[in-house]
Amino acid sequence: MNDFTYYNPTKIEFGKGKEKNIGKYIKDSGYESVLLVYGTGSIKKSSLYDDTIASLKEAGLKYEELSGIVSNPLISKVRDGIKIAKDNKLQAVLGVGGGSVADSVKAIAAGAKYDGDVWDFFIQKAVIKEALPVFTVMTLAATASEMNGNAVITNELTQQKFSIGTVLVNPVLSVINPELMATVSKDYLAYSAVDAIAHTIEVYFTATEHPKFNSRLVEAIIKTIMETTEILIKDPNDYEARGDFAWAATQALNGLTTSGTHGGNFPNHMIEHTLSALYNVPHGAGLSIVIPAWMKWYKEQNTAQFERFAKEIFGLSTADEGINELESWFSKIGSPVTLDQAGISKDDIDKMAENAVQTSKLWGLEENYNEQTIKDILHKA
Amino acid sequence: MNDFTYYNPTKIEFGKGKEKNIGKYIKDSGYESVLLVYGTGSIKKSSLYDDTIASLKEAGLKYEELSGIVSNPLISKVRDGIKIAKDNKLQAVLGVGGGSVADSVKAIAAGAKYDGDVWDFFIQKAVIKEALPVFTVMTLAATASEMNGNAVITNELTQQKFSIGTVLVNPVLSVINPELMATVSKDYLAYSAVDAIAHTIEVYFTATEHPKFNSRLVEAIIKTIMETTEILIKDPNDYEARGDFAWAATQALNGLTTSGTHGGNFPNHMIEHTLSALYNVPHGAGLSIVIPAWMKWYKEQNTAQFERFAKEIFGLSTADEGINELESWFSKIGSPVTLDQAGISKDDIDKMAENAVQTSKLWGLEENYNEQTIKDILHKA
Repeated sequence: MNDFTYYNPTKIEFGKGKEKNIGKYIKDSGYESVLLVYGTGSIKKSSLYDDTIASLKEAGLKYEELSGIVSNPLISKVRDGIKIAKDNKLQAVLGVGGGSVADSVKAIAAGAKYDGDVWDFFIQKAVIKEALPVFTVMTLAATASEMNGNAVITNELTQQKFSIGTVLVNPVLSVINPELMATVSKDYLAYSAVDAIAHTIEVYFTATEHPKFNSRLVEAIIKTIMETTEILIKDPNDYEARGDFAWAATQALNGLTTSGTHGGNFPNHMIEHTLSALYNVPHGAGLSIVIPAWMKWYKEQNTAQFERFAKEIFGLSTADEGINELESWFSKIGSPVTLDQAGISKDDIDKMAENAVQTSKLWGLEENYNEQTIKDILHKA
Repeated sequence: MNDFTYYNPTKIEFGKGKEKNIGKYIKDSGYESVLLVYGTGSIKKSSLYDDTIASLKEAGLKYEELSGIVSNPLISKVRDGIKIAKDNKLQAVLGVGGGSVADSVKAIAAGAKYDGDVWDFFIQKAVIKEALPVFTVMTLAATASEMNGNAVITNELTQQKFSIGTVLVNPVLSVINPELMATVSKDYLAYSAVDAIAHTIEVYFTATEHPKFNSRLVEAIIKTIMETTEILIKDPNDYEARGDFAWAATQALNGLTTSGTHGGNFPNHMIEHTLSALYNVPHGAGLSIVIPAWMKWYKEQNTAQFERFAKEIFGLSTADEGINELESWFSKIGSPVTLDQAGISKDDIDKMAENAVQTSKLWGLEENYNEQTIKDILHKA
């Protein structure tokens, strides 16, 4: 069992109507003003935007707004947010939306306390030393961004999708109200399920040490995500399933599943970030393409854990059976499992490998994931 | 799924030798002085006491000491600690030991910021509004006290074993070094296993709503505790098993297993506190007596979950089979399963019920646990 530090100070307010208290939560945390960040308008189709504004006003908070955050969120928007926060000397940032919005507010929070360009943090030219306090109200469960210090942002000019990670941008408080997630499309429900599963299996398969509790925790999360996804495909308004899905997705990447593991890494995310950066594929869709290919390529490096996965998740025996069953399940819920299904040509594999190897270097994985190995993996997709 | 707030800001430093940094951890958290609290001397048999003092000195911390904390820790000692902390205007408290030491420092931390008598908090005559920051170095894994805001203290004059619970006394930081736990006796290993399992199954069986993730999480913890206990009985120095045991025990009562559940309570702990208060039985030993009796009495109230338990933990079918197997396992590892085995006469059942019903009232459980029902349960033990 590897030494580790576990520290996750994010407070979660989980349940019906809790978003209506967000102004009070921010005020009670000691802040007087906030930058409200959201997406391209879906929160205005429901009452969420109005409820949020009403809550901020009721708490007597000064606020400014930044809208237009898109899936695979852009550094240009982050820079816009930083400017508004700095110009207005805002004391906190609030994201209302899905993982893209949460990731954007984290980058804004860090950039607002930095004199240089925020992209410096993503290319490891600078280290985050302080950040504005982050609050989120989640409308999608998938990334666990509501309870971690990670943010992934795309630089549209350089076609790089890079990340930051520090507890300094962990949300102070996040609201998870499963009711707000009921309008998510079936496509995005599937992508979200893939993403949550991906967060757990990366280290589950790549770690060289697997504490017994952590493997079981991962399996508990995967089984819950799969079971509730199937319920939600049939009935999007099943509150219990929506709640279970959301809380399991939060657990999938809040630090707990990896504590005590040794040597694990995130190769599937690494390669997927390239698909999103180059083709704007939804993150979960990119992952369901990469994961089965990577599993087929990697399986001999950790046969015991692949066999365990097959047995615990599907009641099957061999590594291959487990991989095939997971791939089939991704297909069944409507997420692509080949490059072709996402409209990406295999002729582009060289270009993809060239892009992905940049992340591989930033993450210190180039020994195992060089251009050639990344090509080998993508040829299986 | 029930609405809930999840907030656990305790930082865990897990791993070999981390106790040697405790002075630095306290200093880095912004404190200059500390009350060091420990038990009856076992930390002086190893190098732990010397290492702790060296670490406090190296960090330049002023410190005072309180020793002599016993199993089923006493309010008189807590009062001693409060006096030392107040007299010396100490800024923090550090417990080095097991759950009893951790519970004691939490009560000291709350009492040091209160003008009245600390027992007021336990009898709900006063509410904890502030507390000194708490730090712990754990030498025993069982209570999860290192990562929650609970403390159970015995009032030796009134023969009451009562509790407090507030995030204000959650440790700021706890060190878990599995190596420090290798000298625990086989008896206390067994009692610890029972305690950790008890923490999870109370709400698992009594809640009227069972989110899918939480039930699976509980099962992951129980399986890990059982598997690693059996390894440790054979080889107390198995670091991996010791680490897995410790981390699973921490998860058993840090707020996660109960999040989203509805209507759960802790009847086994409620009754056990009476056994400890009246007969000074080790907490885990008391629990292994109460639990099988309570399960036999309660099983019809939640048959589905009892059958699930039998199936998931033991691969068995019926509620009765699951209960019997758990009882056998408690016996197998060396923890008592009848009052008789603990030297307690059934003639005392009236007296025990009279004591336990006090806690039942404090916890708001008197509707289901009056003197007669508590007697009915104890007659099965």
